[in-house]
Amino acid sequence: MYNPAPMTEPFRFEVQATDGAARAGRFHTPHGVIETPVFAPVGTQATVKALTPAQLDDLGASLVLANTYHLYLRPGPEIVAEAGGLHSFMGWPGPILTDSGGFQVFSLADRRQVDDDGVTFRSHLDGSEHRFTPERAIAIQEQLGADIIMAFDECAAPDDRLYNEQAMMRTHAWAERCLAAKTKDAQALFGIVQGGIFPDLRRQSADFISALGTPGLAIGGLSVGEAKVDMYAMLDVLEPRLPPDRPRYLMGVGAIDDLVEAVRRGIDIFDCVLPTRLARNDAAMTRLGRMNLRNATYARDQQPIEADCDCYTCRHFSRAYLRHLIVAGEMLSATLLSIHNLTTLITLAADLRQAVLDGRLEAMVTELRRSYAKHRPVEA
Amino acid sequence: MYNPAPMTEPFRFEVQATDGAARAGRFHTPHGVIETPVFAPVGTQATVKALTPAQLDDLGASLVLANTYHLYLRPGPEIVAEAGGLHSFMGWPGPILTDSGGFQVFSLADRRQVDDDGVTFRSHLDGSEHRFTPERAIAIQEQLGADIIMAFDECAAPDDRLYNEQAMMRTHAWAERCLAAKTKDAQALFGIVQGGIFPDLRRQSADFISALGTPGLAIGGLSVGEAKVDMYAMLDVLEPRLPPDRPRYLMGVGAIDDLVEAVRRGIDIFDCVLPTRLARNDAAMTRLGRMNLRNATYARDQQPIEADCDCYTCRHFSRAYLRHLIVAGEMLSATLLSIHNLTTLITLAADLRQAVLDGRLEAMVTELRRSYAKHRPVEA
Repeated sequence: MYNPAPMTEPFRFEVQATDGAARAGRFHTPHGVIETPVFAPVGTQATVKALTPAQLDDLGASLVLANTYHLYLRPGPEIVAEAGGLHSFMGWPGPILTDSGGFQVFSLADRRQVDDDGVTFRSHLDGSEHRFTPERAIAIQEQLGADIIMAFDECAAPDDRLYNEQAMMRTHAWAERCLAAKTKDAQALFGIVQGGIFPDLRRQSADFISALGTPGLAIGGLSVGEAKVDMYAMLDVLEPRLPPDRPRYLMGVGAIDDLVEAVRRGIDIFDCVLPTRLARNDAAMTRLGRMNLRNATYARDQQPIEADCDCYTCRHFSRAYLRHLIVAGEMLSATLLSIHNLTTLITLAADLRQAVLDGRLEAMVTELRRSYAKHRPVEA
Repeated sequence: MYNPAPMTEPFRFEVQATDGAARAGRFHTPHGVIETPVFAPVGTQATVKALTPAQLDDLGASLVLANTYHLYLRPGPEIVAEAGGLHSFMGWPGPILTDSGGFQVFSLADRRQVDDDGVTFRSHLDGSEHRFTPERAIAIQEQLGADIIMAFDECAAPDDRLYNEQAMMRTHAWAERCLAAKTKDAQALFGIVQGGIFPDLRRQSADFISALGTPGLAIGGLSVGEAKVDMYAMLDVLEPRLPPDRPRYLMGVGAIDDLVEAVRRGIDIFDCVLPTRLARNDAAMTRLGRMNLRNATYARDQQPIEADCDCYTCRHFSRAYLRHLIVAGEMLSATLLSIHNLTTLITLAADLRQAVLDGRLEAMVTELRRSYAKHRPVEA
């Protein structure tokens, strides 16, 4: 039976309204309130690529993510700690979330060896050998000093039943060790639900992680190559099992349709590199689909990316100018497209939030699906 | 005898104060007033690399330069014209200056053939053949629509006497043709003084260009490889020959010591790619010399680049963070160092201006030279 410990100050989550399974909430952290649903830009190496914190603030970002694996390798957590933590190191005064490094260790590092105690791996940068355990992942995240930190988890391919059983059990044991290792009240540790695309494993994992009573829960192991229908099915399975009074973070999701479908299924927090990565690859994200601005079609197009978008890029620059920057190899294109793409996701989350508050979420979703389907193929 | 035509509206230059040969002035243009001495950031391809116009405005830029040769080749002047000109194309509402393309044709283009009528050359981008004449250079600059435009000139190596004689004569003939070809009152055409490092040629060129009565004069063919003493000597030669009531633009100068010495010799306007190019090569410009922020010395240095600098970068980020961005290959380092370096040059010009207004220029110069010499080698 779910009967979690009350959330301890300074963390507090208020559910302000619900609409079906969707929720509008406020998550209080030591560096400010996060209004949910929220999309968090990813600052992998303690910088959201091509953007200053002032630009992030200007486009409405509230929560920013950074990656423990990357920062552990470079510049090293002690250098971030010497700066007073990530907030002052990267100049972002608002809430910050760090992942545990688990996902990168299992997707990016070389020559991994997992045992029940932890993982030994080699750096993708220089081949040097390192070891993460749950205790080490927490210690590093305490040095980094984010507001929200993650339990160390093992990530399996979503359709490998045997491996998912094993990885889930390890993830559960590691979550308990992370909780025991944690020393700082000013950081909220989220447990991570695993279980691939297997409903029974997901239920089992949701029950176990919920019982830990962490001030929020993350859903890992989705948006990693499985079909969209499988991801949505897992969210349907999880929704009634997750504690209603805790924020729910769906890791690594940032496609427009996925964000919409996940909000409908009770997700509160999202992050993804997609908006900034697409920006560096010349693509604009819109609610009507993607535009590749390198396309010659736009060479003399004096319109903004989206006439009704209020972002800095759309208020000042034409598609023709953006295409010129791209063809000329100017890095300003990455900046301007990142501003637009992050605005798209952050505004979408804010608009979904408002729809929940107004009790008209399904009407908004119907409208979004209609225009999205009419104009362009759905995003991959 | 110098007896120029009065400057026509909307262009007007007021000399507010002098201190020795130095001047503090205000140059009125259709897109705003330029307070001189001024340093203009270079937006080669209609973007100051790695910076948004909002960031340029925030760091105090007033005049921005763009390159005719580059924009002619890409995206093409007709595309800029369709956007309503450079101001709206690149989103910079303040004054803009374009060069004539002469310098790039003579330094960057392939397989040049010069005759008295113009220059045939091949694009450095794709080898395609093009021809610039004085009339064509003006027509292109009229399409681009900058406030200040330049006469088409021939640039010679500074110490080649025979070539400088020839190039100067051609530059004079071309300046007259540019003036005749010009059709738009809302653009100020500056004649360009040439003559290499030869005092008699410089005097002859100053007299000829002055007599044209253009609303401003540029000095070309310096800061192109000659010794600093030769450049300063030419400025000494030119100073008494240039019309005192017109702004004087020293093309391509942006090293700190050169800017100081040129202001002392009556120069009002500067431009250079140095601050932004150095930024992309990890170097910070300060009044005490350069810092290479890739250096391991800075790995744990929690100070800003300069404690007394008020730029966005120095107010928010440490040397340790900047070094991390550089080592991690993050493009934000180019943005943050460009902000600092441009602030250094723009603030230096503004401080020299204030010193002229206060009649204490030489005291400021003495102080600058002392601290500059004490700390680090003079910039190349």
